[in-house]
Amino acid sequence: MDDGADVIGILHSARREQLGDVIAGTEETTTGVIRLRALERDGKLGFPVIAVNEAKTKHLFDNRYGTGQSTIDGIIRSTNVLLAGRTFVVAGYGWCGRGVAMRAKGLGAHVVVTEVDAMKALEAVMDGFQVMPMAEAAEIGDVFVTATILANTGHFNVEIDIPALRSLATETREARQLVEEFTLTNGRKVYLLAEGRLVNLAAAEGHPAQVMDMSFANQALAAEHVITNAASLERRVYDVPKEIDDEIARLKLATMGVAIDELTEEQAAYLASWDEGT
Amino acid sequence: MDDGADVIGILHSARREQLGDVIAGTEETTTGVIRLRALERDGKLGFPVIAVNEAKTKHLFDNRYGTGQSTIDGIIRSTNVLLAGRTFVVAGYGWCGRGVAMRAKGLGAHVVVTEVDAMKALEAVMDGFQVMPMAEAAEIGDVFVTATILANTGHFNVEIDIPALRSLATETREARQLVEEFTLTNGRKVYLLAEGRLVNLAAAEGHPAQVMDMSFANQALAAEHVITNAASLERRVYDVPKEIDDEIARLKLATMGVAIDELTEEQAAYLASWDEGT
Amino acid sequence: MDDGADVIGILHSARREQLGDVIAGTEETTTGVIRLRALERDGKLGFPVIAVNEAKTKHLFDNRYGTGQSTIDGIIRSTNVLLAGRTFVVAGYGWCGRGVAMRAKGLGAHVVVTEVDAMKALEAVMDGFQVMPMAEAAEIGDVFVTATILANTGHFNVEIDIPALRSLATETREARQLVEEFTLTNGRKVYLLAEGRLVNLAAAEGHPAQVMDMSFANQALAAEHVITNAASLERRVYDVPKEIDDEIARLKLATMGVAIDELTEEQAAYLASWDEGT
Amino acid sequence: MDDGADVIGILHSARREQLGDVIAGTEETTTGVIRLRALERDGKLGFPVIAVNEAKTKHLFDNRYGTGQSTIDGIIRSTNVLLAGRTFVVAGYGWCGRGVAMRAKGLGAHVVVTEVDAMKALEAVMDGFQVMPMAEAAEIGDVFVTATILANTGHFNVEIDIPALRSLATETREARQLVEEFTLTNGRKVYLLAEGRLVNLAAAEGHPAQVMDMSFANQALAAEHVITNAASLERRVYDVPKEIDDEIARLKLATMGVAIDELTEEQAAYLASWDEGT
Repeated sequence: MDDGADVIGILHSARREQLGDVIAGTEETTTGVIRLRALERDGKLGFPVIAVNEAKTKHLFDNRYGTGQSTIDGIIRSTNVLLAGRTFVVAGYGWCGRGVAMRAKGLGAHVVVTEVDAMKALEAVMDGFQVMPMAEAAEIGDVFVTATILANTGHFNVEIDIPALRSLATETREARQLVEEFTLTNGRKVYLLAEGRLVNLAAAEGHPAQVMDMSFANQALAAEHVITNAASLERRVYDVPKEIDDEIARLKLATMGVAIDELTEEQAAYLASWDEGT
Repeated sequence: MDDGADVIGILHSARREQLGDVIAGTEETTTGVIRLRALERDGKLGFPVIAVNEAKTKHLFDNRYGTGQSTIDGIIRSTNVLLAGRTFVVAGYGWCGRGVAMRAKGLGAHVVVTEVDAMKALEAVMDGFQVMPMAEAAEIGDVFVTATILANTGHFNVEIDIPALRSLATETREARQLVEEFTLTNGRKVYLLAEGRLVNLAAAEGHPAQVMDMSFANQALAAEHVITNAASLERRVYDVPKEIDDEIARLKLATMGVAIDELTEEQAAYLASWDEGT
Repeated sequence: MDDGADVIGILHSARREQLGDVIAGTEETTTGVIRLRALERDGKLGFPVIAVNEAKTKHLFDNRYGTGQSTIDGIIRSTNVLLAGRTFVVAGYGWCGRGVAMRAKGLGAHVVVTEVDAMKALEAVMDGFQVMPMAEAAEIGDVFVTATILANTGHFNVEIDIPALRSLATETREARQLVEEFTLTNGRKVYLLAEGRLVNLAAAEGHPAQVMDMSFANQALAAEHVITNAASLERRVYDVPKEIDDEIARLKLATMGVAIDELTEEQAAYLASWDEGT
Repeated sequence: MDDGADVIGILHSARREQLGDVIAGTEETTTGVIRLRALERDGKLGFPVIAVNEAKTKHLFDNRYGTGQSTIDGIIRSTNVLLAGRTFVVAGYGWCGRGVAMRAKGLGAHVVVTEVDAMKALEAVMDGFQVMPMAEAAEIGDVFVTATILANTGHFNVEIDIPALRSLATETREARQLVEEFTLTNGRKVYLLAEGRLVNLAAAEGHPAQVMDMSFANQALAAEHVITNAASLERRVYDVPKEIDDEIARLKLATMGVAIDELTEEQAAYLASWDEGT
């Protein structure tokens, strides 16, 4: 069970001799799935992997509601900054990004989104966020915030170019636990949270159990699935079977005490027909 | 170019002799695609069809932001009811349903969602809506609203069981243009909007041009696509090619004057690699 | 019962001979109360007036939720414009302005607020809106909207400088019912709704009955109050008595079927004491 | 400078002999002002007090945005509970209550408000919250949450009846730091945060500096004001002078880099006139 494809990466480089010992793997994150698909595309994937991240009960919830709340939590714990009235720039409007954007908005921030994908950028615009290139967003952030807070809720500490930041600074100091202050040559200050590591893990407690339960249910049932079906699986990246995904959604609703409707036979027939209604 | 698969339905029943004259079709709506897939599953689909509804630039925008605003518009135009403080029940949390739910919430209503699908129900819960079976929702609506407004934003006038409603009523009258009042035996009143027809079309002006432009761009480019590729298309339901979909998103952003970022070569390489970051 | 102090204005200028016939007046709007206080300050007010607008059950609801919904309604009816993704500038963050701002946000617009009062501007910032001078807002609006829609939800048609607009235009035409298009010398187009008259009255149906009921209850009970107390009232602007205001709130909740708590004797004593809790 | 009128309470009971040494006081909180007005009403107030809490730059911001964010922060830090999809009951819709309600909603909770005041209850309804008596709210909370979290963001530890809770429990244990679990006779569990003490102070860091700056500016300038005007002040509860309040709003906007408009002479004249517009 991998997170970020880090173990699988090592197995495909420094520990290739162990590749043969592995029946199958599962992967928890968006970043990891992107890397595994790259491996698969290069024809180098050494065993089948279930992309747990692609399960709806995982990415629609963990990435959005989990990352959303826990990232905000990490920023507040490390800075105790008031988000209301703050210009809050979110880089990327994927499931994690939109989780963070909607929670920042929900706490009263003015949220700016930057994107490289037109489809996602358009959704962000329609959701009422300002969308602009990062170069412009950085400028606006300065005007309202006067000092910039940099937090990473992606993967590892490579998403913020910390060496570049360090070389731009005339002075650095620990402003507060988990908060490093960089004074730039123009006198502006930039605050880097948790050494650029994932702020929700490094400065808060990560996602709440009430959302990780679904991710881990996917992991557990995906593991059972690959054992049961080991013979028929090829060295590819597979999605979690839809039945497992739906079953987890049903179980979760039940634990929350939420009841829903069932289609009547008549309604199901109406949906399945092509000659009704005309 | 069909809407609700109504023309295609007739071609496959009353006008079968004309089936051979058709090179290909396109379909605009969720309901239509469901019906076409039923036809395809039965092996009866007479020509290839592009499911325009499945394009992201269509259903992520038209169904959500278009239906959302225009449905609320239709309800207000026909009733001038104040939505703030009203208990507003949305049946179904698909793209249309979530559009209507978010706009009703945005106008101050207390929104209740009913669903038959556990995954969508769970998203509605996490989005802060109350989720319950329709039988319970109907009861709660009564308590707060005292009189119930029934509006359909789905397809045709078959989604509300109007004959049943009529047989339950002791008296009916036109309360206001496009508003029929049904007095039930218990004295409660139910108001049916626009004869149960699509309230955004029958009582307002349908979707704004700023969202239909994307749907129609899909229609136009899908038509061009089927002509160009007629030889290679089978009698199946096809998605709009991703390149067309992405191109429309790019064009739409440009017309709105919104600029976005581009991946640098380094960033693109990072995303495509499997051995970075460890 | 006046609206905008228009009748009272005429009574104090062209019809001064009728001033003596009037026992007392009531005034419905913010604009009217501002004008009446000016009259009172000049020592020229000819009879007592109850400022119905100042009742909480009036301005907290009518101005905010009524103007909010009906202004948006008027804009959509006259233009059918999609608000999602639109940059929507609200001039003023009083009760009407914040009603319009929160509804525009609720429909997916990116809302910019302009103000002349620091306190209100600060609230708007903390509520997550962008605040800037109108000169800047006008510029930003242009970038995203390319054509500007001008609507007035204040008083009369004097709040937008229509003669100035007309003199700036090289060409005007009726773009659509209630929508006049002005082409400026730089080629940009400005659309004026409903001749600059109150857009919620001129292009929609005004406030919903469910919010006017409270305003009119204030009018009716204020009229009863001035008759009963005519002898003791001076020529001043009076607030609606708190008991009337609270009674209307209680009645409104009851008609909506909403029950609330009552303080227990113990709780009431705790609130009234100064020696508890230490 | 008092908080909750606790020092002033002692000065009026155990330390009466020191009353004469005090020129004047200031009070920071809603609870404190309620208690001081009780003292004043009883004719027992020993020196003038400025009700800093009543300044707009205090209660519109500190109580709403400060309490809102920091209360949620305290709940998350002590429990790491996911708020999305949770039924969140807020007792009271004063400035603190509506701050907490809007932030809980902003994090995806389904928010229920209880009130004893009809006016505030009606505002909560119009803002889209469910309003019901606490007895009903407690029941609904149970259905969705299965275990109830109790947090106090009011004053001291007297607002939750902890002895009663303790006597109802068959078993108690520390579930997690700052979280006490009570098992009731029916098997349900209730979690009490931070011993019922103010959760934003006891489990988080209190309000962010960006909102306390305004409260403390009021304290400082009110202190200067009472010294300067000591001769003319009576033993009453005074509001912060409007000029001080407005000046703080202006300064705060300036530190945030937000510019606003100024009325032109023409506009100011229009607002001050009673004979314009007809």
